[in-house]
Amino acid sequence: MPNPANATSPLNHPLKASEPYATSFEEVLKASERLKGVAHETPVLTSRLIDEQLSERAGCEVQVHFKCENLQRVGAFKLRGGYNAVAQLSEEAAARGVCTHSSGNHAQAVAFAARARGIKATIIMPTTAPKVKREAVLGYGAEVIECSPTLKAREATTQALIERTGAHLVHPYNDPHVIAGQGTATLELSQQVGALDALIAPIGGGGLMAGACLTLAHLQPHAELWGAEPLGADDAARSLAAGRLIPQDNPQTICDGLHAGLGSLTWPILRDHLTRVITPTDEEVIEAMRLVWSRLKLIIEPSCAVALAALFKAPPSRPSRVGLIISGGNVDLDRLPW
Amino acid sequence: MPNPANATSPLNHPLKASEPYATSFEEVLKASERLKGVAHETPVLTSRLIDEQLSERAGCEVQVHFKCENLQRVGAFKLRGGYNAVAQLSEEAAARGVCTHSSGNHAQAVAFAARARGIKATIIMPTTAPKVKREAVLGYGAEVIECSPTLKAREATTQALIERTGAHLVHPYNDPHVIAGQGTATLELSQQVGALDALIAPIGGGGLMAGACLTLAHLQPHAELWGAEPLGADDAARSLAAGRLIPQDNPQTICDGLHAGLGSLTWPILRDHLTRVITPTDEEVIEAMRLVWSRLKLIIEPSCAVALAALFKAPPSRPSRVGLIISGGNVDLDRLPW
Repeated sequence: MPNPANATSPLNHPLKASEPYATSFEEVLKASERLKGVAHETPVLTSRLIDEQLSERAGCEVQVHFKCENLQRVGAFKLRGGYNAVAQLSEEAAARGVCTHSSGNHAQAVAFAARARGIKATIIMPTTAPKVKREAVLGYGAEVIECSPTLKAREATTQALIERTGAHLVHPYNDPHVIAGQGTATLELSQQVGALDALIAPIGGGGLMAGACLTLAHLQPHAELWGAEPLGADDAARSLAAGRLIPQDNPQTICDGLHAGLGSLTWPILRDHLTRVITPTDEEVIEAMRLVWSRLKLIIEPSCAVALAALFKAPPSRPSRVGLIISGGNVDLDRLPW
Repeated sequence: MPNPANATSPLNHPLKASEPYATSFEEVLKASERLKGVAHETPVLTSRLIDEQLSERAGCEVQVHFKCENLQRVGAFKLRGGYNAVAQLSEEAAARGVCTHSSGNHAQAVAFAARARGIKATIIMPTTAPKVKREAVLGYGAEVIECSPTLKAREATTQALIERTGAHLVHPYNDPHVIAGQGTATLELSQQVGALDALIAPIGGGGLMAGACLTLAHLQPHAELWGAEPLGADDAARSLAAGRLIPQDNPQTICDGLHAGLGSLTWPILRDHLTRVITPTDEEVIEAMRLVWSRLKLIIEPSCAVALAALFKAPPSRPSRVGLIISGGNVDLDRLPW
């Protein structure tokens, strides 16, 4: 193990093509077709200075290709999965509308997708959700139902809505079509930059990373897949170390988009594909966030900066071309963490 | 005149192909060849929300295509002109090195270009220049000579250096090769987005805008060319209104990159091509800057936000596809203007 900050899988079993995952590379390709003309082909950026700093830290040449999903519509990769899930619904199911209980980018993605399909979206949000997030969702024409800020209230409100209307729940990550949709970010990156030695992305519920795993394992089977999560919400690192799904417990981190725990559909994919999960501290995340703001001129949120922070914490041990998914850029500009 | 905020040229004479400008579209094409593999092809972004807000303000449909030169190497379009000027030097001239007296992005561009060519760059900087800018230039391997923070001291120090070493001065804007290099940003934008009804860019010394004028007038002769400058440094607006070059006098604006006055080479090009120059206040600039940060997820500096502020101040009077050059993103993250 090159660095104690890494949790390395004890399983390490070879990839089985027959593994019964919730979705597959073929579904990523279908999602990619559905997203044509809808999702932006986001740019890939590089920074000579960041490469130099990382290479010095690593003791060998490291090149990072930043896939800018913060420049995606709705400001995050979430558009891909949310749209794919809504687009593949049957006419009959779609007619009953869709719903989700997220106050973040996924809610905007579902609202956007529902409007594009001309169907109704209902978003369950806690009364404590920031006004700006409520307004963003309302701006896409969705209905917002408020509930108490507890998981129990959220689930009960969602359940009641589904029973009343028959709306289809689009889960933020534990949904095959959401995972396949998120995989298209990696598909695009691979087409844009070619061969990679590794790909790194943040892990919250694991939807982005699971889609990345299925996609890159198919396209570039020799590339390693690395996860990044904040030390204060490290259920993926602990699950990988234990070889079984360990639930998220009382997350404490500035990375508010990564509080969710892995899902039953994302975990098996991560378990079989990840070589390591790196867990930077919030201080390291803030430092990386600031580096991206000042050098790449991109607004990224802490939940996204965790991936670069991870590379600095546990840099590659040999020369590497690394793909890194810049997941989102929704930040309160009045309350910067430095 | 649709809006009193605009200064409209009283000249309005048809374009003369024979006009003796300092450079030409052919030189822009040559610059583009020199910049291949050096300058990034920067992405073009759009924002549905910004388009909606602008369209509402305009009373007709307005689409803005943001050409992201803040994502250019060295963080600004300045790379294009600086590199082109250094690249076209004869072997003999290059051997004597290059110099400039800028503390901003142009200094970095010249330092970068000199390193790429393997020649010496000397940057004259006032003792008051921010440490971070000094370090950026030193990081590209240039030598820095400090001088008192007055125009007189700067010019005297530069002159002494040139007499001593024979170094070639690369002026930040009043240089044919710099103007032609900056024109490549517009060339690329035109190739990326096709037909435009108008293009808007910030005006400081006028290098970016002059390059844009020569390029778009050739490629899209029906497109209008609009300038944007802060009300507190409005020499282009006043020059255009008067029909003669009026020197910049005591600029007072947050747009620190636009303090320079027009040059003898940029003015004739602007005079003959610009339909209007719009002059937002600093408050309007800050509002536009914040809008780009929060919606486009891009770090842009005030000197760059002036172009979007101008569109809000004096929106198009008919449906328009507008190109807007996001010129740079060098901001002190510890001192944001809101």
